[in-house]
Amino acid sequence: MPRFRMTVEYHGTAYVGWQRQENGHSVQAALEGAIHGLTGESVVIRGAGRTDSGVHALGQVIHADFSRTWVPHKLRNALNAHLAMANERVAVLDVAQVSDDFDARFSALRRHYLYRIINRPARLAVEADRAWWVPKVLDHELMHAAAQQLVGHHDFTTFRSAHCQAKNPVRTLDRLDVTRVGDLIEIRASAQSFLHNQIRSFAGTLKLAGEGKMSPDDVRAALEARDRSACGPVAPPEGLYFMQVDYPDQT
Amino acid sequence: MPRFRMTVEYHGTAYVGWQRQENGHSVQAALEGAIHGLTGESVVIRGAGRTDSGVHALGQVIHADFSRTWVPHKLRNALNAHLAMANERVAVLDVAQVSDDFDARFSALRRHYLYRIINRPARLAVEADRAWWVPKVLDHELMHAAAQQLVGHHDFTTFRSAHCQAKNPVRTLDRLDVTRVGDLIEIRASAQSFLHNQIRSFAGTLKLAGEGKMSPDDVRAALEARDRSACGPVAPPEGLYFMQVDYPDQT
Repeated sequence: MPRFRMTVEYHGTAYVGWQRQENGHSVQAALEGAIHGLTGESVVIRGAGRTDSGVHALGQVIHADFSRTWVPHKLRNALNAHLAMANERVAVLDVAQVSDDFDARFSALRRHYLYRIINRPARLAVEADRAWWVPKVLDHELMHAAAQQLVGHHDFTTFRSAHCQAKNPVRTLDRLDVTRVGDLIEIRASAQSFLHNQIRSFAGTLKLAGEGKMSPDDVRAALEARDRSACGPVAPPEGLYFMQVDYPDQT
Repeated sequence: MPRFRMTVEYHGTAYVGWQRQENGHSVQAALEGAIHGLTGESVVIRGAGRTDSGVHALGQVIHADFSRTWVPHKLRNALNAHLAMANERVAVLDVAQVSDDFDARFSALRRHYLYRIINRPARLAVEADRAWWVPKVLDHELMHAAAQQLVGHHDFTTFRSAHCQAKNPVRTLDRLDVTRVGDLIEIRASAQSFLHNQIRSFAGTLKLAGEGKMSPDDVRAALEARDRSACGPVAPPEGLYFMQVDYPDQT
């Protein structure tokens, strides 16, 4: 059965999250529904990352096996037509046929996320549901300095959800950069893999750093505490974007 | 009565447009409702530009007269609280007290608009309602060359709605620039004032130029025809943003 890799974009607000669940409509179900509408087949797809409800993706990657082969751009266009008919806020950006040993989740070398904060006194209108609104002035240089305490190979127990199912809380964080352009503060995080709620936990803690309520040393101490209660309040999902996944071979 | 100038942002999709209308909820009514909620007064506000349904604003400017004075940032915060309670997609970015001869509409020296096109094969998910999706490849340099035919002092009859109420179709277009970054094509238009649907008429015509269906000379001929039927199909409202208004004195 030919295997296809697809790059997928979605607006997460209307979904219960990436993964199929009993309690509502998921992005996975939207895509599987489009595939079923096109081919009549009940295909189970696998994504590189399981995003929570409200979290967006500009570059989620999935793989799926089809019973027959497709010209990639025709498959992309046909799936987008089915997603449009169903009024889904999901789009297939790119399709490529890949070898059977490609696995969207297990072949991933690195995942890249973006967390967007809009830091201004006025509530959000155009960017509502697409960023975290923080009215209090944040010092992004302090946030960046605090973030550097988290980069590297650590036990991230402090920064993972109580519901995190990973057996091992140790991860290697390759990058956690904080930059600012006008009102927009961007946090960019890269690692081979992340724990559940890890980036939103970082964002909530870095916000406290930006307010001057936690110094970089305090953030370091929170990491070393390996204690969930040392984490700042978890930032809301609407600021988080799953941006890109790197694989050993991009074909 | 103290007069206040306010800079206002809104997501236009849910509204019948800027102006109060019988057939639905307008941005003007949303703001007047917030003012009434705060002060109990029935204030009529005036905006610098009347945007259509679906058109967004990052920098609409209004003025309104209040029966008592306010500390500007407190007025901003209180109005935003009322807009939030009413679940409006409208925000007051900035408030300043101004002299009685300031008029948001008539004092304006120049208005700036942005039209966003996302030019890619895949439908829009995250940017749905916030840009015009054009799947066919557009040559932005051809679009820019065609746009330069429109800059200057002209009779813009070709590029205005049949419903345009302006007595005079002559305007001076100061700027019409087309640039591209990745999939995003931006058209930036500046003039003291615009005719009804003028920028969306430009965008629809420039799209034909980008497809190679109209040369810069064809666009020039369309302008000189002074004939609505020479215009390309009007581009949809969701790509248009009212960005900024310049006044002689920004106090």
